[in-house]
Amino acid sequence: MMHYDLVVIGTGPAGQKAAIQAAKLGKRVAIIEKNNVVGGAAINTGTIPSKALREAALHLTGMGKRDLFGGRHRVKRQVTIADLISVSQQVINNELNVIRDAFDRNNIDLIWGWAHFEGPQLLQVQRHHESELLTADKFVVGVGTKPAKPDHIPFNDQTIFCSDSVLKLDRLPKSMIVVGGGVIGCEYAGIMATLGVRVTLVEGRNQVLGFLDYEIAEAFQYHMRRMGITLRLGEKVDSIKKIENNNGSGARVQATLESGKHLKAETLLYSVGRQGVCADLGLENVGIEYDDRERLTVNENYQTNAEHVYAVGDVIGFPALASTAMEQGRMAACHAFGVEIHSMPELFPFGIYAVPEISMVGKTEKQLTDAAIPYEAGIARYDELARGQLLGDTIGMLKILIHQEDHRILGVHCIGSGATELIHIGQAVMAFNGTVDFFIHNVFNFPTLAEAYKVAALNGVNKLQHV
Amino acid sequence: MMHYDLVVIGTGPAGQKAAIQAAKLGKRVAIIEKNNVVGGAAINTGTIPSKALREAALHLTGMGKRDLFGGRHRVKRQVTIADLISVSQQVINNELNVIRDAFDRNNIDLIWGWAHFEGPQLLQVQRHHESELLTADKFVVGVGTKPAKPDHIPFNDQTIFCSDSVLKLDRLPKSMIVVGGGVIGCEYAGIMATLGVRVTLVEGRNQVLGFLDYEIAEAFQYHMRRMGITLRLGEKVDSIKKIENNNGSGARVQATLESGKHLKAETLLYSVGRQGVCADLGLENVGIEYDDRERLTVNENYQTNAEHVYAVGDVIGFPALASTAMEQGRMAACHAFGVEIHSMPELFPFGIYAVPEISMVGKTEKQLTDAAIPYEAGIARYDELARGQLLGDTIGMLKILIHQEDHRILGVHCIGSGATELIHIGQAVMAFNGTVDFFIHNVFNFPTLAEAYKVAALNGVNKLQHV
Repeated sequence: MMHYDLVVIGTGPAGQKAAIQAAKLGKRVAIIEKNNVVGGAAINTGTIPSKALREAALHLTGMGKRDLFGGRHRVKRQVTIADLISVSQQVINNELNVIRDAFDRNNIDLIWGWAHFEGPQLLQVQRHHESELLTADKFVVGVGTKPAKPDHIPFNDQTIFCSDSVLKLDRLPKSMIVVGGGVIGCEYAGIMATLGVRVTLVEGRNQVLGFLDYEIAEAFQYHMRRMGITLRLGEKVDSIKKIENNNGSGARVQATLESGKHLKAETLLYSVGRQGVCADLGLENVGIEYDDRERLTVNENYQTNAEHVYAVGDVIGFPALASTAMEQGRMAACHAFGVEIHSMPELFPFGIYAVPEISMVGKTEKQLTDAAIPYEAGIARYDELARGQLLGDTIGMLKILIHQEDHRILGVHCIGSGATELIHIGQAVMAFNGTVDFFIHNVFNFPTLAEAYKVAALNGVNKLQHV
Repeated sequence: MMHYDLVVIGTGPAGQKAAIQAAKLGKRVAIIEKNNVVGGAAINTGTIPSKALREAALHLTGMGKRDLFGGRHRVKRQVTIADLISVSQQVINNELNVIRDAFDRNNIDLIWGWAHFEGPQLLQVQRHHESELLTADKFVVGVGTKPAKPDHIPFNDQTIFCSDSVLKLDRLPKSMIVVGGGVIGCEYAGIMATLGVRVTLVEGRNQVLGFLDYEIAEAFQYHMRRMGITLRLGEKVDSIKKIENNNGSGARVQATLESGKHLKAETLLYSVGRQGVCADLGLENVGIEYDDRERLTVNENYQTNAEHVYAVGDVIGFPALASTAMEQGRMAACHAFGVEIHSMPELFPFGIYAVPEISMVGKTEKQLTDAAIPYEAGIARYDELARGQLLGDTIGMLKILIHQEDHRILGVHCIGSGATELIHIGQAVMAFNGTVDFFIHNVFNFPTLAEAYKVAALNGVNKLQHV
């Protein structure tokens, strides 16, 4: 029976970084994967495939350059699912190689199978016709989440999809109902609309992406509608059913809203919530409890109530980002082996690969108002920037929130090309407690979108002078 | 006769920002432009047109996505100059409107004509059939530069071009000799090669873009050659002549190198050096001298030897960037009217819109070695990054130079997609005297190119641990 210093369950971003960090500390590490590929949802069903689809859709349709080049220069008139998937698969394969290489290079044992705790230090790994037992001093649980699939939704992976199975679409539908205006729903709505699919998005709250700054969410909703997406906000789905005889309309799914409206479409994507996958881990044999959505609770060091078992990534809930999962994994491994760590940076950014791209770091206007922190907002619009013009992006904007008294940067909110990259400039300045003066006096390359920081800063300072 | 608090000569980036800054301080400002459009070389012949051409060329040929999509998805088989220029003109027109609006909004008098000092405070503005006289307390000279056009080069703007007239190309040539491996030469070489023009670039030194970090320049040269560009480094042009009878070869220009080689091509771009345009300003009437390339010398406040006359932008030489010119303009106006200013940030980035894009901030490896500052280099390659894969950019790299002892960031060097934007993250960290630890612990959006900072930081720290 093999004994390890650390056994990691799950090869997603959180598990990978935990395993690699421990290996770099000279520890004997195994990592267990139940699926037949490494990488978890980030690589195989979630983050990367949706981003690859998005890039392919934007490029192949010429979207995002249309202001500049007009419809004339659409790359392909007919974009097929095969075009999209082949690009996606290429990226996924490469990522898988990168991960496998990293495991090899760091002498991490990759073990295929289903992990099940038999005791506090004892783990059984079950494969089809065999199983093995391992012991370890420490464990990291990074098993992630899966789409929530309520019983009353008749998923069939042909017309009614969850966010995993939507990748199995065998052709582009004419129409799609997206239920749920969270990150996944908004990202797929944008991809599908870009590809010419008629999209209706239903969200129970009055705003999609509830955590966003209101002005950014409003701009985003405006652009979704301009793309032809129908938004049904503040509406809940009462029932979803297949339509067998579609009378030649092509509609094969009907969603009935609580308000009585019937929505019909060729396909439906149900993307409301995700849930943990802890029930089969044998956590009861270690005395670890999970909540009704199979998620684990951890302390500030990512320890569960069994202190030698850590949990990281989506399974511990908010913020459930690949980026934060990686850092949690690293930090858990460091703590497990007594390496001093900084606490998790509070300043993590959110990136949403919608159409257009959105990113934020720090506080929203509402949060600052609720906390009675006096601020001013400085705004730059991409159409004021030469680079915005060059890219044909005239809809983007960047907003910085500035403390009215000490002029520190309290939040940065961006929608438009490059948002997920640009946000890190503001994040760095915030991390060093920088003030708006930094942006005023900094020299930015010309022409860049980064100049938006200077334009926004000047706008904010002009407003502050009138306060 | 009108009297102003400030008269600015030249409506390029430096002059614009000087005028706007003074107007915002409540001053009465006029700005004088001798050409029939505002904006200077940045808008009309230099920065913006070349960047617009570049964007159009990259998009229309699908370059940069080729790794991902292959040749299949080229947007247009035949790209015409008309396609390219129409995009460029659209961007230029918009920028012109932005500038005119800014002058209007700030009540800046825009006066067309040739400025000529008649005395220390007295300026004549000459138009075709009339002239007017102005007086002002302060002046800012931001007249920029023009391409150097030595007498022995038979420029004809049909086959032999300078970097201004190359925009008048009426069709894409089959081949082009580019003389001069500075920023302009390298940018046009890349654009032309992207468009399928057979390019030979001649540079007298052994490296193009001599100010770059050597490793980045080497990578750039490698990629230029991979694009099919022939580099003739360490070679000087002896003579250039038109070929009248080209024997059906299409060649209409011949450049003879000092080494005896004859290069023939359909066209030639001569892009060696730029020179000021001060000779006709009547500076002798104010006692201001210029050098043999018609450039002005200023003190740290951008004052010429006549202290009420400031000079900013390309006319004062290095670094001759639109970005630094703007900051110089702002600073000159502030100093002129007694507003306290910070000194010019030393940390200005360089952005080169070549194919691929290049940017740097801080010191190069050679500068650090010469100064005996012990450093380690951390490197990230885009093909290690999910976002690099998604963008189809597998050639990019980012390098951070880390002080071996205190771990401060001493320089950042980047080649690849988004380089000119990404550099500002490192620039911000350097401005706050940040160390490599910032990048190690920072949470970056996933997937982004900005993650290159974390990958490079981890690489650098691993090396430091072995020191």
